[in-house]
Amino acid sequence: MGNRQITLAQRPIGMIDESTTTLVDAPMPICGPDEALIKVGLLSIDPTIRTWMNDAPGYLPPIGIGDVIRSGGSGVVMESNHERYRVGDVVLGVTGWQEWAKASESNKFTVLPTGLGLDLATVMNVLGTTGLTAYFGLLDVGAFKEGDVVVVSGAAGATGSVVGQIAKARGAKKVVGIAGGAEKCSEVVETYGFDECLDYREPGLTQRIRESCPKGVDVYFDNVGGAILDAALANISMNARIVMCGAISQYNATERGPGVANTSMLITRRGQMKGFIVFDFAHRYAEAHLELAAMVLDGRITHQEHLVTGLEHAPDALNLLFTGGNHGKTLVVVDDSVQLS
Amino acid sequence: MGNRQITLAQRPIGMIDESTTTLVDAPMPICGPDEALIKVGLLSIDPTIRTWMNDAPGYLPPIGIGDVIRSGGSGVVMESNHERYRVGDVVLGVTGWQEWAKASESNKFTVLPTGLGLDLATVMNVLGTTGLTAYFGLLDVGAFKEGDVVVVSGAAGATGSVVGQIAKARGAKKVVGIAGGAEKCSEVVETYGFDECLDYREPGLTQRIRESCPKGVDVYFDNVGGAILDAALANISMNARIVMCGAISQYNATERGPGVANTSMLITRRGQMKGFIVFDFAHRYAEAHLELAAMVLDGRITHQEHLVTGLEHAPDALNLLFTGGNHGKTLVVVDDSVQLS
Repeated sequence: MGNRQITLAQRPIGMIDESTTTLVDAPMPICGPDEALIKVGLLSIDPTIRTWMNDAPGYLPPIGIGDVIRSGGSGVVMESNHERYRVGDVVLGVTGWQEWAKASESNKFTVLPTGLGLDLATVMNVLGTTGLTAYFGLLDVGAFKEGDVVVVSGAAGATGSVVGQIAKARGAKKVVGIAGGAEKCSEVVETYGFDECLDYREPGLTQRIRESCPKGVDVYFDNVGGAILDAALANISMNARIVMCGAISQYNATERGPGVANTSMLITRRGQMKGFIVFDFAHRYAEAHLELAAMVLDGRITHQEHLVTGLEHAPDALNLLFTGGNHGKTLVVVDDSVQLS
Repeated sequence: MGNRQITLAQRPIGMIDESTTTLVDAPMPICGPDEALIKVGLLSIDPTIRTWMNDAPGYLPPIGIGDVIRSGGSGVVMESNHERYRVGDVVLGVTGWQEWAKASESNKFTVLPTGLGLDLATVMNVLGTTGLTAYFGLLDVGAFKEGDVVVVSGAAGATGSVVGQIAKARGAKKVVGIAGGAEKCSEVVETYGFDECLDYREPGLTQRIRESCPKGVDVYFDNVGGAILDAALANISMNARIVMCGAISQYNATERGPGVANTSMLITRRGQMKGFIVFDFAHRYAEAHLELAAMVLDGRITHQEHLVTGLEHAPDALNLLFTGGNHGKTLVVVDDSVQLS
């Protein structure tokens, strides 16, 4: 039995295509001392994967040419030589785009609790890096407080949709989403319960944010960067906080865009822009898991997962994030027998 | 006896010129109840004055057409109907560009202490908004700590030169200035004691910052904005703090520049950009005054004042800030008989 893997063939320019990755048949990995062998069930498809394909300094090193594409994922432990993992455990960690992964000292996995009453896809969405990013980004980095006016870009996306729902649940005065197209905007309001959603594909975004938030934006949660960040900056309130979470508008950029012009608003309005990576909060995941699980179970968080079946379709699934073709958290089903029961 | 004033004739596009302001002869103001009459001695010429001439929202309302140009200044109390001021007091506040100003409930002045052994120009520089901006910007907004690598733009300027000297005195690992031209750069190192100074007019600033600060920039104090801010952003260290103090490169801009492209570095390096206005720290000026006065008296802060004589030359003095024609803090001498004895 082999291990199908998707490796990086060459660094992409712009969107990834067939020449970017290679599907290879590797031998089954062997479970060495202090290791565990994991059958991969679901892959978490996140925009940040695209940034790792570039030969540019980041918060993690670039993926090497010929290496398996780095990715979050979940699976079931099939063999274990480590006391941390038992056969049958469902685990979450960095699996990579492949059928079999190994847990080791340098690549640790989290054993997922059973009995929560949540399925694996839900856990990978709301209790995975997606939901954790929303939680710590809004509450810690953004220092959200009751009565704040919150604007979220990428509002129909996996992270953005959770940001808005946490803000509503915690007593925001108003939550305004920004998304691309009428269908996404309708989803943001109807499905995720935002007060409003602005379509960034329509002209005059700066003015429309002003009309939606006449007293200014207290927290802007930025998943997008570029021109949308600039429009939000133009509308910040006094002491506003801009949460720099992602810049999906820039990840496939092949040329320098117009850049952000309104940084002086930070002076005028005494605002701050602050970036973060969710891994910085790893020591506090437990508190977030409790609140997020409770919010899913009692219906305060609505979530959707967009399942793409087949390891070989992982590159297409990644591109969906940039074309807007997904609805909710994008996951690739590598083996549907892996379940959290 | 009249009151010569400089008023705003029309809003400038780009640099101010003869058509921007008018020199008018107004009647002497009358000292009403609860007011004091001030003979203006020195005007503080600050880049922010240029921003107040635009019809754009800011931290203060725009100067109205026909109104006296708003400006910090100092003077001596000649008449007083308010217990706060005694005749002969030397006071600091918003005088405007005119020979006579009034203190009132809506325009309060600070009575300067005598006996410090510092002349009025020095006090208006290091103990005025210039020095206070440097102090609170570096220490509070920038959360400077011993061992930090600090980069300061506008390093030959009144604020920038003090920022670097406070950082050195407080134990920075390295202090690097950025200034325009070889002469200014030499002044930053020789006169103000920075470790290095980079000339932004030479190409490759991003790379040169990298060579000067190979482990990254812990605190970047931005007086300039635009391309220099972008070059600094490309070089921030983990948890870096960018102090947004001013954006002098933008104040005369008539077209949109290329904007700031490297905001995603805030995510990768978990950095923050934070803006401030020194008036926010007014309740803490006393602590800063003590430390700054001590540093001037014992020579840890070197300072220069660039005196321009004659109220009518105030517009030219303002333009000096943008052409780089000044050395140190620019002050206009309206009446040289006003002294802090």
